Amino acid sequence: MALELKGIIPPMITPLTANGDLDEKGLKKLIEHLIAGGVHGIFLLGTNGEAPSLSYALRKELITKACQYIEGRVPVLVGITDTSFSGSLDIAAHSKEAGADAVVVAPPYYLPISQAEMVDYLERLIPQLPLPTMMYNMPSCTKLHLSVETLKKAQELGAVGIKDSSGDMSYFYSLVEAFKETPEFSIIVGTEMFLPETILYGGHGAVAGGANFFPKLFVDLYNASKEANTEEIKKLREQVYYINNTIYRVGQYTSRITKGTKCALSVMDICEDHMAMPLQRFETKEREKVRHYLDQYNSLRV
Amino acid sequence: MALELKGIIPPMITPLTANGDLDEKGLKKLIEHLIAGGVHGIFLLGTNGEAPSLSYALRKELITKACQYIEGRVPVLVGITDTSFSGSLDIAAHSKEAGADAVVVAPPYYLPISQAEMVDYLERLIPQLPLPTMMYNMPSCTKLHLSVETLKKAQELGAVGIKDSSGDMSYFYSLVEAFKETPEFSIIVGTEMFLPETILYGGHGAVAGGANFFPKLFVDLYNASKEANTEEIKKLREQVYYINNTIYRVGQYTSRITKGTKCALSVMDICEDHMAMPLQRFETKEREKVRHYLDQYNSLRV
Amino acid sequence: MALELKGIIPPMITPLTANGDLDEKGLKKLIEHLIAGGVHGIFLLGTNGEAPSLSYALRKELITKACQYIEGRVPVLVGITDTSFSGSLDIAAHSKEAGADAVVVAPPYYLPISQAEMVDYLERLIPQLPLPTMMYNMPSCTKLHLSVETLKKAQELGAVGIKDSSGDMSYFYSLVEAFKETPEFSIIVGTEMFLPETILYGGHGAVAGGANFFPKLFVDLYNASKEANTEEIKKLREQVYYINNTIYRVGQYTSRITKGTKCALSVMDICEDHMAMPLQRFETKEREKVRHYLDQYNSLRV
Amino acid sequence: MALELKGIIPPMITPLTANGDLDEKGLKKLIEHLIAGGVHGIFLLGTNGEAPSLSYALRKELITKACQYIEGRVPVLVGITDTSFSGSLDIAAHSKEAGADAVVVAPPYYLPISQAEMVDYLERLIPQLPLPTMMYNMPSCTKLHLSVETLKKAQELGAVGIKDSSGDMSYFYSLVEAFKETPEFSIIVGTEMFLPETILYGGHGAVAGGANFFPKLFVDLYNASKEANTEEIKKLREQVYYINNTIYRVGQYTSRITKGTKCALSVMDICEDHMAMPLQRFETKEREKVRHYLDQYNSLRV
Repeated sequence: MALELKGIIPPMITPLTANGDLDEKGLKKLIEHLIAGGVHGIFLLGTNGEAPSLSYALRKELITKACQYIEGRVPVLVGITDTSFSGSLDIAAHSKEAGADAVVVAPPYYLPISQAEMVDYLERLIPQLPLPTMMYNMPSCTKLHLSVETLKKAQELGAVGIKDSSGDMSYFYSLVEAFKETPEFSIIVGTEMFLPETILYGGHGAVAGGANFFPKLFVDLYNASKEANTEEIKKLREQVYYINNTIYRVGQYTSRITKGTKCALSVMDICEDHMAMPLQRFETKEREKVRHYLDQYNSLRV
Repeated sequence: MALELKGIIPPMITPLTANGDLDEKGLKKLIEHLIAGGVHGIFLLGTNGEAPSLSYALRKELITKACQYIEGRVPVLVGITDTSFSGSLDIAAHSKEAGADAVVVAPPYYLPISQAEMVDYLERLIPQLPLPTMMYNMPSCTKLHLSVETLKKAQELGAVGIKDSSGDMSYFYSLVEAFKETPEFSIIVGTEMFLPETILYGGHGAVAGGANFFPKLFVDLYNASKEANTEEIKKLREQVYYINNTIYRVGQYTSRITKGTKCALSVMDICEDHMAMPLQRFETKEREKVRHYLDQYNSLRV
Repeated sequence: MALELKGIIPPMITPLTANGDLDEKGLKKLIEHLIAGGVHGIFLLGTNGEAPSLSYALRKELITKACQYIEGRVPVLVGITDTSFSGSLDIAAHSKEAGADAVVVAPPYYLPISQAEMVDYLERLIPQLPLPTMMYNMPSCTKLHLSVETLKKAQELGAVGIKDSSGDMSYFYSLVEAFKETPEFSIIVGTEMFLPETILYGGHGAVAGGANFFPKLFVDLYNASKEANTEEIKKLREQVYYINNTIYRVGQYTSRITKGTKCALSVMDICEDHMAMPLQRFETKEREKVRHYLDQYNSLRV
Repeated sequence: MALELKGIIPPMITPLTANGDLDEKGLKKLIEHLIAGGVHGIFLLGTNGEAPSLSYALRKELITKACQYIEGRVPVLVGITDTSFSGSLDIAAHSKEAGADAVVVAPPYYLPISQAEMVDYLERLIPQLPLPTMMYNMPSCTKLHLSVETLKKAQELGAVGIKDSSGDMSYFYSLVEAFKETPEFSIIVGTEMFLPETILYGGHGAVAGGANFFPKLFVDLYNASKEANTEEIKKLREQVYYINNTIYRVGQYTSRITKGTKCALSVMDICEDHMAMPLQRFETKEREKVRHYLDQYNSLRV
């Protein structure tokens, strides 16, 4: 049976304990929370998962445990991007063994590389990967905005889809146009606010960070979008906008999104909220704000 | 005796064989070439050294072998920057064991972090480092331009200097002003064209990539600058400008600088020029251009 | 009767003759073409209108003639942005006299200014303007991305709406949220591809450059969006995408959009396609491409 | 006798009264202050002169009066850049009539244009200019960093030099190399901190904004640099650094440099410090800081 990559696929955060180990109990609860919310897949070790900050050993432990707990109920995607080629292959091999369904590849991210260099890299990487490959566009972290031509080449090499987190809707429409003859090539978008447009106009799904804490909200919005239910979309998008404007605005700096997501899960008593270095979790003041926003959200929805 | 970080400290390229192993013979010849040229130190595993692209095993092998071959003739600095905290500590511990003299630290480079987050990170990292710490400013790769305040904090935590590769001369003058009361804090600049200004107006040295192939040129320019010998500076800077305008312009993309440096060393029969993935060495056409420029350079100097 | 700013409001190009004068005959035909296509307003002297490149005399002549030809059939908006304060006031006064309905204001665009400085400027400018004021966000040309706070202040000072050409859909959703209590504040978006989302989720209209040559296409897409007719939207957006991917890709550089728009109008025999300096119209080769794309567009639609 | 463009050429601020008129008395005093300080030329209507914010009438009045007061004692350069071609020609013609010595040309600054479009523009502009043409590179305001190739073309068309305010020292060295066969082509740099390097290594002079208030400091630094007097350079550069770190840091935003310059002149009782809109002069608090820094500077120098 072919792997179908569509719907809501949360970029799962990596639950950690105070001393930097995997919070196994939290991981289990988080996975049950996501699946109960109706998600269509789980993406491990993305940007929200703090993958580059984790040691290889910890990444492997997470993959093994997560696959065990998920037990094939939804497809598992694993980010394998690394600045070291052998490191990427190692994580890919481990993902296969652990029972994951696909690997996710972004450009190596220290040196700025060109599209041509990325294509060269994919020509050497993809044939060695033991699982279907999803491309990952994340220019704010990798410095390279994958061109449509690079993705076309990746598709020829076997890539089965693209997860775009650029926030660039013009690019999304270019992707839809470019891949309209091969609708099995999944176009998944990482910008929560644009989920309805994505689904209405040719996208397959969303990698929505907020689905870590509110999976059902995003699943409902996905369904409303599939049905082109404008009223329902408006109502649910207001709620997504609320998250954007509250939980994601607590604290400072780019990292506040991941910190806020972990903090919300901790307030909801799902898992711990420790961060991998170089980051640190929110302090009490920020935590109280997140708690307040979660309470308010719940009361608004009643 | 205190460690003195000054003069010409090449950011050594990492010689690799066709299958990605360390080119040991080339490494030995390269080190002799640098020391014969009069360099004042050697910096392993910087950007030019392709550190993030190398596996931990290969990085450690390089550190061990390089320290062995150098035998204490000049100070050895080792880049330990990594997106994983434990990875950085591991390389630092290995550097100490192998006999290196200092470690070099830049921001973890996947997620864009803030100055405040960098300071937090240094507060946790520097006390655990077993060797003197040099800071490394490389915003084009790490996304963070280390502020003077961050460096002041690093100094309080024990850092002994800064290597700046931003190419921003205004920043250099800010550094000179900021650290004028502590002249033992080394200010080392990574932009070859600005070496004379750096030395004349308060800097301690240069991490010049071109010193991989022409170490003596940069040592001579350093000495001329120390003596404020304007005529000699003009003459030697013309030669540096020549490199900039020829060898560094072969090929395309940012990576051409490192590729051209390795290619020049290969043409000079010092070491192999294979690159770590995702990059590939120059093809024959580019190689012939580099050869031509090297020949022309030699004939011009006669 | 209150001025209603909504629907399709083309940023009209300024038809010019070979020696830089106003192409009056072309202007007349263009205005009839727009009104026949069903547009809801006409915006003179925006970016597409090459306003800053025109002398004050020519700008005034255009305003006078356009208002004469339009004869009140649709509202006329006039861009008055200028680096000189008195220049802006002068054009505004002339617009009032000529019978225009509103003026459009963007930041003075030579020196990069801050939000606070923009607010200061608006506090001095808006009270002196003789017509309703529309704000204009065009950061790629003015260097300032008007913040929601700046727009709130502009609204307090009397501004009646915002035309956003940033292409930033997150910003659009912020605007909708920020002004939801005052739905009479018009939110008009300048990015053609996003017209449906704009209208579906709280926007009032579009300043679509392509409506210069295909006014009916954009009017139809606006109507389909008002009705949330997903199938019709998909079909019409394909046509908008076609323009994006053909006519707007002829030639090079940012200016190709305006050049292509004028060229299309010239091929369609509506007006001349000369550009104000520093730009020059397309040469024969580009013109033939535009002609080919127009032919293909017409045959596709049959 | 050929026009020689070299040495210290202050980008003169435009003294204005509270109601936006020319402060004639202040203008006269400022000109005497500059000439007494030993400057080698005066540049009217540059960025510091707030040219784009002034009406044509005011620009012309300034040119006429300034030329009158200067009386040929030093060369007068006039910025004619405008988004309107006829506006540029008009100011150029007036400059010639008033007795100015050269005009200064930057790219029209609203629409981002390409190097090729800039060359086209120069081909049409320079032949119509009645005075020698100096090019002006100011990418932060004009959006175009003039390439060496564009400048070579400008030189062929008759341009006699380049004033570079990019702050990019690598570019400066490219200019020196590119024009080394035609040393009569003036290379003038607008970054005060780099004045010594500029003069030592092939530049002809500096357009130093700080020379508005401390002309002699910059003239002395120019002379020390001509003589390669390293000790004197160090001492004087400390003073330039002091200005950078004090007067130029008062207030916020990019505009603080011009505001601080005008404020310093006002504190020194040379002219008024009103700004053209959209800007406003410093308030009392900032003014007191500038006064304090001026006092401190004077006491330090004793």
